[in-house]
Amino acid sequence: MNEKDRTENDMQVNETKIEGRNACLEAFRSGKTVDKLFVLDGCTDGPVRSIIREAKKQDTIINFVSKDRLDKMSETGKHQGVIAMTSSYDYAEVEDILKLAEERNEDPFIILLDGIEDPHNLGAIIRTANQAGAHGVIITKHRAVGLTATVARTSAGALNYTPVAKVTNLVQTMKELKDKGLWFVCADMGGPVMYKQRLTGPIGLVIGNEGEGVGRLVKENCDMVASIPMKGQIDSLNASVAAGILAYEIVRQRMNAYVD
Amino acid sequence: MNEKDRTENDMQVNETKIEGRNACLEAFRSGKTVDKLFVLDGCTDGPVRSIIREAKKQDTIINFVSKDRLDKMSETGKHQGVIAMTSSYDYAEVEDILKLAEERNEDPFIILLDGIEDPHNLGAIIRTANQAGAHGVIITKHRAVGLTATVARTSAGALNYTPVAKVTNLVQTMKELKDKGLWFVCADMGGPVMYKQRLTGPIGLVIGNEGEGVGRLVKENCDMVASIPMKGQIDSLNASVAAGILAYEIVRQRMNAYVD
Repeated sequence: MNEKDRTENDMQVNETKIEGRNACLEAFRSGKTVDKLFVLDGCTDGPVRSIIREAKKQDTIINFVSKDRLDKMSETGKHQGVIAMTSSYDYAEVEDILKLAEERNEDPFIILLDGIEDPHNLGAIIRTANQAGAHGVIITKHRAVGLTATVARTSAGALNYTPVAKVTNLVQTMKELKDKGLWFVCADMGGPVMYKQRLTGPIGLVIGNEGEGVGRLVKENCDMVASIPMKGQIDSLNASVAAGILAYEIVRQRMNAYVD
Repeated sequence: MNEKDRTENDMQVNETKIEGRNACLEAFRSGKTVDKLFVLDGCTDGPVRSIIREAKKQDTIINFVSKDRLDKMSETGKHQGVIAMTSSYDYAEVEDILKLAEERNEDPFIILLDGIEDPHNLGAIIRTANQAGAHGVIITKHRAVGLTATVARTSAGALNYTPVAKVTNLVQTMKELKDKGLWFVCADMGGPVMYKQRLTGPIGLVIGNEGEGVGRLVKENCDMVASIPMKGQIDSLNASVAAGILAYEIVRQRMNAYVD
């Protein structure tokens, strides 16, 4: 069984079918991630075109199918020419992440994301977390992408192994984790170069939003700031690349700490 | 002027309009990257649907427009209901990359890509190359994505500053660069951990294809292999994340080499 098969078969997927014009349009407008849209072929009236327009905005895969196929897919019998497929994946609790560290007899290493919006970035970061030996990823509920099918696919199977918890208040979660002995390092361009910071021990690595970086309150609650040296003419690195570089600086320092 | 404006205005873009059904279909089938497709609204006959199908496969942005608009866009006056827009960007020569290193009075640092296929990965790697202080990126002509609009956009402006050369025979180019004093390190999971390899001096970092890694001949022509420690349950890291981690290990070692 190859990696792709494993991802698709074993993942805790909750697939939901949304049927009918209003329900589909509402799904898009509410920001729900629709993986696939099935539209009755040749159907070009106003409401259906609005739905297609929303689907294109979100890069949803659109399939134009026959009435027969739609009827067979439909569970309600009232698809009105459109069926949208959404998926959701099971979230872990923050406790599960700490438990994993305990089971492995390692200092906790958690990656916290303050508002990552791009599903490819989130998927790549979960993949990196798995390979860097992090015990889990914490994401926020607001202004952030959740565990969609694109995230699962981009994680290349890592979502099966690396727990991802979703929290409402990142600062509150950080405070609770501090009580359990974690230190927080915030990725920020203004800080000291990461190579000079001590990144061993129980650690939470905080990565900010693609455009705005780490929020002010979250940053104030970090114990230290670490920056990636930027030698170029542009503003920043891709968020998942930056997360990878910082996560592996933690790996390097941990390896040295255990070897020396 | 913000970064996005700069990218779109200053980039060396050669935009090409492809008009007519056969020409558009051929553009898609030949693997040319089409940035945008304009289709006459309401046009649903067989050939146009084939073109739309190809466009969807490639995630091309499709705009359904009026006959008036198409007529105005058309240069040939024979658009037959479809106009495709393709872009291409100016490539540098390998010499330009070496010259940039010389101008900066630095040991050359080049990132060589052995068949990166995903435009988002190529764009993110060019962005990383810029920030890591690499003097350029070398890509191959065959089985690899070129400098498309998606690559330019994902590079976040880096394509304006970091030269990208395209070569036919990567091994031949490596041999020529070796004569000029460069050493080559190949990213490969089987090799010694990157932290233990000496990655200073004039260096070429070779990154392989997303699925297959670095080709056998290219690998045989590398002076050393370096691996990223993999602690997870899955196969590999995202290619642009892996390139970022290795590029910054070179940055770290170079900074130490110059400081100590």
